[in-house]
Amino acid sequence: QLVELTCQHFLAQNTAQILKGQHWLITAGPTREAIDPVRYISNHSSGKMGFAIAKAAADAGATVTLVSGPVALVTPSNVNRINVISAENMHQQVMAHVKSTNVFIACAAVADYKIAEVAQQKIKKSNDNMQINLVKNPDIVADVAALADKPFTVGFAAETQDVEHYAKDKLTRKNLDLIAANNVAASNQGFNSDTNALTVFSHAKQFELPLASKQQIAQQLVALIAQQRDENQ
Amino acid sequence: QLVELTCQHFLAQNTAQILKGQHWLITAGPTREAIDPVRYISNHSSGKMGFAIAKAAADAGATVTLVSGPVALVTPSNVNRINVISAENMHQQVMAHVKSTNVFIACAAVADYKIAEVAQQKIKKSNDNMQINLVKNPDIVADVAALADKPFTVGFAAETQDVEHYAKDKLTRKNLDLIAANNVAASNQGFNSDTNALTVFSHAKQFELPLASKQQIAQQLVALIAQQRDENQ
Repeated sequence: QLVELTCQHFLAQNTAQILKGQHWLITAGPTREAIDPVRYISNHSSGKMGFAIAKAAADAGATVTLVSGPVALVTPSNVNRINVISAENMHQQVMAHVKSTNVFIACAAVADYKIAEVAQQKIKKSNDNMQINLVKNPDIVADVAALADKPFTVGFAAETQDVEHYAKDKLTRKNLDLIAANNVAASNQGFNSDTNALTVFSHAKQFELPLASKQQIAQQLVALIAQQRDENQ
Repeated sequence: QLVELTCQHFLAQNTAQILKGQHWLITAGPTREAIDPVRYISNHSSGKMGFAIAKAAADAGATVTLVSGPVALVTPSNVNRINVISAENMHQQVMAHVKSTNVFIACAAVADYKIAEVAQQKIKKSNDNMQINLVKNPDIVADVAALADKPFTVGFAAETQDVEHYAKDKLTRKNLDLIAANNVAASNQGFNSDTNALTVFSHAKQFELPLASKQQIAQQLVALIAQQRDENQ
């Protein structure tokens, strides 16, 4: 109900460029963590959701900076895209652009871990078993949310089980303003899907964005973020 | 010199469909080895070289089966494409289609190792360090070359150093008929490049295919394979 109202309200005002004057910083896609010059660890994020959000925010008049991992997507009109590979690259670019940002949306599926020691040459197959040692990557959304003058900060929780539990825990633990949760194991809302369904949690409320195209979900989410940010101020 | 002659000979006969009646089985692209439902290990292979070889062989009249890992490429005309994800999938499909094959070309960048125990749910970040345990994947090209009625078997060696040494060792150790070697660390012949340069080794000879478009290299390689196979029979 609330969401529908928000969405209608937003769509009615869309031509009015309700986000004009705001700077939104958005991350999208996977990151890749090098093992050696030819191999890497990555994940199934397609970048579609983050790119859809960037388009929706730009369509609503925001100045949008999109920091994207390696994806096969066309940059939406009026979006300033910065390409990165690893979580460390992404962290660096986000920190370089977060100043004067009004809203930060961490939609990228950032690798939690990187390879402890990246091999300079292709590793040769030898033993029957092998181990890869990993160390933690910087936590981009937590670092942004810890800034003294932090923007309105929105996280994502892509889970395969206990979605609500993990999402609410992440919202609190990382000091986010909103978190958008989805079950990537469910059909039609996975990483490569063109549709999605989100449950968005603030510290006090819960909003359902039922299954729709990622572009429709993005428009609703942008409207919800704009409205929740107004309420917070 | 030899290569140029081969190539001209081949191009002259191209319209004559010199591979008519032959079945060529080709692998292409990377494989992905699942860590959990969202994360995987892969490599930078784009599939471009394998797809170019499939096109060149089909253009020369061969019946072509292309077993491809996850890539963003259009299937060439008259090529029967089978999509796979992991090295085990690829091994299974190759073994199912290798019977009655005249030529097998292992162009895919197959993961040497897979994850020892794939997690059924998304692994949660917890400790500062983590280890991934790997076990060896089946060796597709070696298993094909070990068949009693093996096809003419061509391997690839994508290396970042000591290219000739590794390539010749692989040719002998795996009982291949030819191996096509390239230095993926060199500019303009890496995984995502549209150009390539190959050094092809038989047990007795060495052939240079200098830097050219992957489609030109593919035509020369197909011509060379056809000629070397004729010599062997």
